[in-house]
Amino acid sequence: MSTYSVGLDFGTNSVRAVIVRTDNGAEVGAAVFNYQTGEMGVVIDPKDPHLARQHPADYLAGIEATLTGALAQACRRDPDCAGRIVGIGVDTTGSTPIPVDASGQALALQSAFHDNPNAMAWLWKDHTAYKEAAEITAAAKVMHPEYLAKCGGIYSSEWYWAKLLKCSRIDAKVFAAAASWVELADWVPAVLSNTTALDQIERCICAAGHKAMFNPAWGGYPNPEFLASFDNGVLSRVRDTLPALAVNISDTVGTLTPEWADKLGLPAGIPVAGGAFDAHLGGVGCGIRPGAMVKVIGTSTCDLAVAPLATELMDIPGLCGVVPESILPGAYGIEAGQSAVGDIFNWYVHKLRPGGGLDHATLDREAAQLKPGSTGLLALDWHNGNRTVLVDQQLTGVVLGLTLHSSPAEIFRALVEATAFGARMIRDRMTEYGVPVESVINCGGIARKSPMLMQIYADVFNCPMLISSSDQTCALGSAMAGAVVGGAHPDFEAAAAAMTSLDQRRYTPIKANVVVYEQLFQLYKQLHDLFGTTEYAANQFNVMKELIALRELARG
Amino acid sequence: MSTYSVGLDFGTNSVRAVIVRTDNGAEVGAAVFNYQTGEMGVVIDPKDPHLARQHPADYLAGIEATLTGALAQACRRDPDCAGRIVGIGVDTTGSTPIPVDASGQALALQSAFHDNPNAMAWLWKDHTAYKEAAEITAAAKVMHPEYLAKCGGIYSSEWYWAKLLKCSRIDAKVFAAAASWVELADWVPAVLSNTTALDQIERCICAAGHKAMFNPAWGGYPNPEFLASFDNGVLSRVRDTLPALAVNISDTVGTLTPEWADKLGLPAGIPVAGGAFDAHLGGVGCGIRPGAMVKVIGTSTCDLAVAPLATELMDIPGLCGVVPESILPGAYGIEAGQSAVGDIFNWYVHKLRPGGGLDHATLDREAAQLKPGSTGLLALDWHNGNRTVLVDQQLTGVVLGLTLHSSPAEIFRALVEATAFGARMIRDRMTEYGVPVESVINCGGIARKSPMLMQIYADVFNCPMLISSSDQTCALGSAMAGAVVGGAHPDFEAAAAAMTSLDQRRYTPIKANVVVYEQLFQLYKQLHDLFGTTEYAANQFNVMKELIALRELARG
Repeated sequence: MSTYSVGLDFGTNSVRAVIVRTDNGAEVGAAVFNYQTGEMGVVIDPKDPHLARQHPADYLAGIEATLTGALAQACRRDPDCAGRIVGIGVDTTGSTPIPVDASGQALALQSAFHDNPNAMAWLWKDHTAYKEAAEITAAAKVMHPEYLAKCGGIYSSEWYWAKLLKCSRIDAKVFAAAASWVELADWVPAVLSNTTALDQIERCICAAGHKAMFNPAWGGYPNPEFLASFDNGVLSRVRDTLPALAVNISDTVGTLTPEWADKLGLPAGIPVAGGAFDAHLGGVGCGIRPGAMVKVIGTSTCDLAVAPLATELMDIPGLCGVVPESILPGAYGIEAGQSAVGDIFNWYVHKLRPGGGLDHATLDREAAQLKPGSTGLLALDWHNGNRTVLVDQQLTGVVLGLTLHSSPAEIFRALVEATAFGARMIRDRMTEYGVPVESVINCGGIARKSPMLMQIYADVFNCPMLISSSDQTCALGSAMAGAVVGGAHPDFEAAAAAMTSLDQRRYTPIKANVVVYEQLFQLYKQLHDLFGTTEYAANQFNVMKELIALRELARG
Repeated sequence: MSTYSVGLDFGTNSVRAVIVRTDNGAEVGAAVFNYQTGEMGVVIDPKDPHLARQHPADYLAGIEATLTGALAQACRRDPDCAGRIVGIGVDTTGSTPIPVDASGQALALQSAFHDNPNAMAWLWKDHTAYKEAAEITAAAKVMHPEYLAKCGGIYSSEWYWAKLLKCSRIDAKVFAAAASWVELADWVPAVLSNTTALDQIERCICAAGHKAMFNPAWGGYPNPEFLASFDNGVLSRVRDTLPALAVNISDTVGTLTPEWADKLGLPAGIPVAGGAFDAHLGGVGCGIRPGAMVKVIGTSTCDLAVAPLATELMDIPGLCGVVPESILPGAYGIEAGQSAVGDIFNWYVHKLRPGGGLDHATLDREAAQLKPGSTGLLALDWHNGNRTVLVDQQLTGVVLGLTLHSSPAEIFRALVEATAFGARMIRDRMTEYGVPVESVINCGGIARKSPMLMQIYADVFNCPMLISSSDQTCALGSAMAGAVVGGAHPDFEAAAAAMTSLDQRRYTPIKANVVVYEQLFQLYKQLHDLFGTTEYAANQFNVMKELIALRELARG
């Protein structure tokens, strides 16, 4: 009989628990809990659209509800299930820092702070700290440009230090009461193992490295003088609470306390793995490995890759993060993304509503009939700016090559192709800087629903497009971390071999299409560099001519 | 009591006759005759989409039907009408050459040739001679580049010599039987005045100058050696039949014959003016004069301007024609046009069908609510190539600046603005080369139906947009020619003052809008030169940024 492991996946509106078999990854129990506080689990402020907070009590309630629910389900199949759970893994949104007291209790759990949004978790999509982020970026540019080089050149309002600085300015009481600030990804493992005390709590490399400017290259967190330069050093006190080293998902941060074990119906002492962000453990759940990049395709994308630590990796311009062991132990974790993919298709279908209001499925079916190049169109996928590799919100979408005959399906296909070209820019940037990419494992709804899109991606990338067979790759990745710390597998390579699998559908490049898309991609790149950088200057007379020539060729 | 004049307006599918008062231009009688032969009056060939011919018998039937009909209507108001008609003017499509025998009778009126399309009129939109046109262009480039400079750089398959050369190659019998080839604009006046004999028939400068490479600068028609260089000189025989001088619309080519007078119920001896093309007499009917450009806005546009012959006009690069007296006597006639205007809006509404299938009126109304610059969008109006000033069919449309919020009405407005910018390129090219443009008189359905569009044009041009009050400016212009040759007015200035009028609605530039559109136009020009010429090279990083800045400004 197989052992089991637990994955806890804290999303934006709900938390999910899964119990999976460690020998084959099969899910034997699952449950979801919707956060109760605020609007769909998010505390908002009608007067400030930037504000997004979450109540820590919801996290605690969610752990109990989902784990007991999942366990009940699993026990119906295997009554001995609880006794054979070897480990627990956790993934969460981030950067989602929580102000805590000296014992590690979230401030919002104290009655004095219970209803104060500033004392709650500052959810990843809270943008109230946009001014503070700009200040940090400006200071780093002058004092420590290397900090920015690791996070794509701009420190974001979504991230740790900006949120803390903001809180210090708008709510002195909360900031004074906070002995430290803990990322949700660190808080949950600490709570489960009662390691929340300031001198015990572990911080994971995923959150620290990507959001708190932690990097072994400069000895951990940002240098004290740098942080002290803001507002008379209010951040220094917090920095002093942060440990010198960070854990990764193969580290055990503690074991399940008797109290939690009791509450959940589990044996005490189960090891709890270091946490990580949802997308990163999603990559793990897809079976990410050196050479196999993972694309999570949703409204936007998260593009993940790993490269062995032995690789001499330079900074990669335009990539939001390169952090050792942030995804897999023993490998650099590399994170990138497109600001809009599904959102572009949703805009086209639901906002532009072409063809008298055609739906996704019809447009997809019609676009699938068209040959590469036959539309004569070329688009830029910048409707929501460009996150990677240009890191520029002030870029916009383009459709070029329109004629009096251009049809809704043709434009739809051009938009899909544009997202493929944008994705290839990321892949090419990675490989140019020494990150190997031989195949791509895709997950997310679009990857499963649109063979048209996947074939175009295979042809544009000229490499196989694989699809993860899991619908819940983040929760599966967390369970894999549980399996590794629980000893079911010696490492993530073994865990991936046993617990992850691919859909039977795989998309291999079609030679004739590859040739056409290579030509189109060169034109895309031309426009990409022309409108998106300041370095490239050239006349563009060739663009429309070449598109017409390709169109005529494709139409015979 | 006023005198009257007759205007005969030969369109693509029908002929219209109007009888108007010479003192105020009021229409007192009108009738339309649909050509009977072929599909909607056009003889086509299911096997060759390039072929478009017309039966000359339809022209003759049309003269009789429309003139008697219009006269009957006019006589109901004024029983003495027929006796007070002072002149007849004629406008037609073109280049529409007709092969004729030595007496000037159209070959297709002979029973032997009655059903042979090659013996009929070769309608303006017949493109069977595309290879011949390319040969003529190539030869002229080497031997006489000045011929091309006057017609925008490319001799068209729609034009006189190309069609003759084609006929000589595909139908030797017809070509041998044709003593000469006469433009429809010349044939109708000659038929009415029985001046069809080869040594009598006058050729108008409008057709000769724009389509048959006639120019006083090189002594009239193309030099005999040049024409002799094609196919052993088959064109030379035709050239020998062409008179050395050309007439204009203030010239009388003859007087109405007793036979026609009888048939029509008119007195014999009424003077018949030299013919011209429909768009040109449309300009006259709008009241064109130096400083007042005319825009005929339909599916595409015809843009007309005149400049006094005393002006030292250089060749104007990219303009399809600059011909002395082709529009008004005593002035250079300048012709330009946009390949698609209404057609772009029709594509958007009927082919792309955005907004779930919104109609023109709704999009227009919603777009009218938007402030200049507020869309953040910039478009290129090249969905059907660019006729002026780039003369390039292989250009295509662009929409730039798209976001996830871009709406159907915003894109519609951007398309309208793009046509305004394209129109301004033409105006600017004219004024740069010494053709004065202080105001624009617009006619055509769109000009009358869309105040939104007209206001944008006024703001983009920074000059008043006026609207002709006539629905039938071509027929009115013809009647003005009749009035001038009939002595009712000494010249076209006087005729225009009396017989043309403007709509009460006029659109004057709004200062704040002018400022915004000037900035947008500079960006348009940047893209125009970048994609449409080979001369301009530059980085375009500024384009999206400036559009966003203008958008934020417009939205406050």
